[in-house]
Amino acid sequence: MVFWMKRRRPGAEAPRLRPRVAPTELARIDFTELVPDQLPFLGQAAYLQLEFFESFAMAVAGAPDLVAKEGLSNAAGIALRKHHALIAEIRREGVEPEQVMAPFAPAADRFREFTTGADWYELLLGLHLTSGMLDDFFVRLADGLPSELRTRAQGILDDRSAAPVLVALLQAAITAEPDLADRLALWGRSIVGDTLLVARAALEAAEPEGRVGADVEPVFTLLIAEHTRRMDALGLTA
Amino acid sequence: MVFWMKRRRPGAEAPRLRPRVAPTELARIDFTELVPDQLPFLGQAAYLQLEFFESFAMAVAGAPDLVAKEGLSNAAGIALRKHHALIAEIRREGVEPEQVMAPFAPAADRFREFTTGADWYELLLGLHLTSGMLDDFFVRLADGLPSELRTRAQGILDDRSAAPVLVALLQAAITAEPDLADRLALWGRSIVGDTLLVARAALEAAEPEGRVGADVEPVFTLLIAEHTRRMDALGLTA
Repeated sequence: MVFWMKRRRPGAEAPRLRPRVAPTELARIDFTELVPDQLPFLGQAAYLQLEFFESFAMAVAGAPDLVAKEGLSNAAGIALRKHHALIAEIRREGVEPEQVMAPFAPAADRFREFTTGADWYELLLGLHLTSGMLDDFFVRLADGLPSELRTRAQGILDDRSAAPVLVALLQAAITAEPDLADRLALWGRSIVGDTLLVARAALEAAEPEGRVGADVEPVFTLLIAEHTRRMDALGLTA
Repeated sequence: MVFWMKRRRPGAEAPRLRPRVAPTELARIDFTELVPDQLPFLGQAAYLQLEFFESFAMAVAGAPDLVAKEGLSNAAGIALRKHHALIAEIRREGVEPEQVMAPFAPAADRFREFTTGADWYELLLGLHLTSGMLDDFFVRLADGLPSELRTRAQGILDDRSAAPVLVALLQAAITAEPDLADRLALWGRSIVGDTLLVARAALEAAEPEGRVGADVEPVFTLLIAEHTRRMDALGLTA
């Protein structure tokens, strides 16, 4: 816990003051016609999994008991496997992963710092919501990849077995301390905009020639619908 | 880096002031005759790997570039696999791992906090030296386990593939900044005593009936000889 008090960012104090981005303002693309550049796709997806790993590791370090540590360390291992599997795909293209990930690092680092939240519970909820939305998003974006790579990338990204660990820990926390629900609901709502911005950055990287134009609103609607389901499952108002 | 400045412990400021323990003062046991209790052995070994994992994850978070992050995240994955493999051994004995690990947690947490050091370089060296010595030690202690468990436990603990990552990063750092060598040499010497205390705690847990008596000095001599080799390989005076 001490961990957070020291690392807390000024920006995390007042998440409602951050600029909001409504889904309809985001880039409009027909996902079925979009052919993402493979390397930026893999680079950003790989780097995000590294961020998720770092957040899970922080959650392990801050866990109040050994049962929570075990669940979260398993989850950290899943994010790490995804990261390494995506890195292996980049190497398979004959490129050094660092080179491909580097352009995404500054924005992804800022994103992680913001979504770390003010304490362990906000960290867990942030991880659950952001990894849920972005895994959903990248799985959809991968639809445009060449078929073999698509299958492998979707196989890597579609491992959602970390989610039940987070849900169980959050549900137990909210049951034990019902006042937590309001704060977490607010926190959950506040990180949607930033998560959609990360998705938008991925679209821009995937479509560098500005061919963005068809309507992708349904995809963002779907991301938000899944987000709402995650919040509902925790009894939080989305 | 910022990470450390905030988490730095007062104790890390003046490691030379900490009590020193010479190897000959440690418990004397004949390792070939010692039959460690399986559960305390597995519990302590498993918890230590979790500590190493947490330290590796901290090293990933503090890494100055993506190449270092990749190497260290691989190393974190190795520690995590060891932790989970040892936990699986505890479950195989029909016991909940948390119960078996809990008695070792407070001392191991203090040990990790101390060996974290004052910055990223000290963290890497601390990890290299403490995981090296303790993996050596637990592999030797496992000699007394029932034969099938011994084989599996030694197989788990004898994976040293994280070491070359740490050595390469440390060597590059010392080459780039030769002044680092003196500080790291001092740091390396200062953590030997605490690491041997962890080994002694393992002996006491393994031998609860106080049958400790035969001479185990050769084992500690061996641990220190390996430690000296690790320091020498980095050009550090042990």
